[in-house]
Amino acid sequence: MLKGTVIGNVISTKKITDLKGSKFLCVRIEGEKPYDLIAVDSVGAGMGEQVLVTTGHNAQYAFQQRETPIDAVIVGIIDEKH
Amino acid sequence: MLKGTVIGNVISTKKITDLKGSKFLCVRIEGEKPYDLIAVDSVGAGMGEQVLVTTGHNAQYAFQQRETPIDAVIVGIIDEKH
Amino acid sequence: MLKGTVIGNVISTKKITDLKGSKFLCVRIEGEKPYDLIAVDSVGAGMGEQVLVTTGHNAQYAFQQRETPIDAVIVGIIDEKH
Amino acid sequence: MLKGTVIGNVISTKKITDLKGSKFLCVRIEGEKPYDLIAVDSVGAGMGEQVLVTTGHNAQYAFQQRETPIDAVIVGIIDEKH
Amino acid sequence: MLKGTVIGNVISTKKITDLKGSKFLCVRIEGEKPYDLIAVDSVGAGMGEQVLVTTGHNAQYAFQQRETPIDAVIVGIIDEKH
Repeated sequence: MLKGTVIGNVISTKKITDLKGSKFLCVRIEGEKPYDLIAVDSVGAGMGEQVLVTTGHNAQYAFQQRETPIDAVIVGIIDEKH
Repeated sequence: MLKGTVIGNVISTKKITDLKGSKFLCVRIEGEKPYDLIAVDSVGAGMGEQVLVTTGHNAQYAFQQRETPIDAVIVGIIDEKH
Repeated sequence: MLKGTVIGNVISTKKITDLKGSKFLCVRIEGEKPYDLIAVDSVGAGMGEQVLVTTGHNAQYAFQQRETPIDAVIVGIIDEKH
Repeated sequence: MLKGTVIGNVISTKKITDLKGSKFLCVRIEGEKPYDLIAVDSVGAGMGEQVLVTTGHNAQYAFQQRETPIDAVIVGIIDEKH
Repeated sequence: MLKGTVIGNVISTKKITDLKGSKFLCVRIEGEKPYDLIAVDSVGAGMGEQVLVTTGHNAQYAFQQRETPIDAVIVGIIDEKH
């Protein structure tokens, strides 16, 4: 998984039917060269929170509805890092 | 998902049968080091529009026909970013 | 998908049984920092041709025989780019 | 797989139900440009140990419970490298 | 697939049960910025040999036993490159 910070949200009115109702958040992934991913929220993450993002095929397992075209999901909010 | 802008289209007359009829768009992915992906359109995106791209295995779920050799699909057109 | 140019072929006599008969082409992927992928050909691509490459799990769907250990396939030859 | 060193752990109280009980470790992946991944531990790895990390879809196969939204797992502790 | 050279092996005594007996080789992937992957050998590759590596989900298809947590496998030894 990747660690990042929620820096915004993304509004897409015209989107594929399976994604209606999905909340898209923009997450800045930490690292030497930070980059942004758009992830579907599954835990109620908010602006500025540090989150855990799962990418790829298994992202779909965060939701009851499988087989949707998503590739990144926020699976946890990070409390603190030791 | 990745955020990018449609910058062109790609014409491939000689292609695998499963991809006949697919509309391939060239999307410049945003970031410190922008790069281009060729994505299949599923929402009627046009030149210059900012779009949401799903990559990898789950890209196929954007279409009724599964198990086709695609790895990137435009799943939404972005309205605005906050 | 990725866009690249066929720059060579790769000969591997000692390979896994499932890949016997596969034609491996070396494709230089376009971008700010070009890099090479070895892709299985499914459309009869030749040296110097610009091609469309599908990577990852879905690459296998280009072939009748599924569940083979390949992760990149040439799915189309590009005519022109607008 | 990737080779890296366990450099910390990540605590996430608010997380997706399927991940309750998972131990998340921060692994610094070796290379010219090291980067960090958060991996679920499956072998009892500890701070400072050099480990083998499997990423992507197959990470789930490290556990009895499949179809969970994880994309990186520690599958082995490295003894020594020749 | 990726092209690289076997530069070493990796010994992991404490590893997940499904990987007992697997031979892990360190492969330096060619490119402008070479990097190392740890791949499971399926063809009897040796030190210094140039090999073809399949990554991701489909790596498992190199073996009879599916659903194991591996993400890279050596599927062929390269004879020569034209």
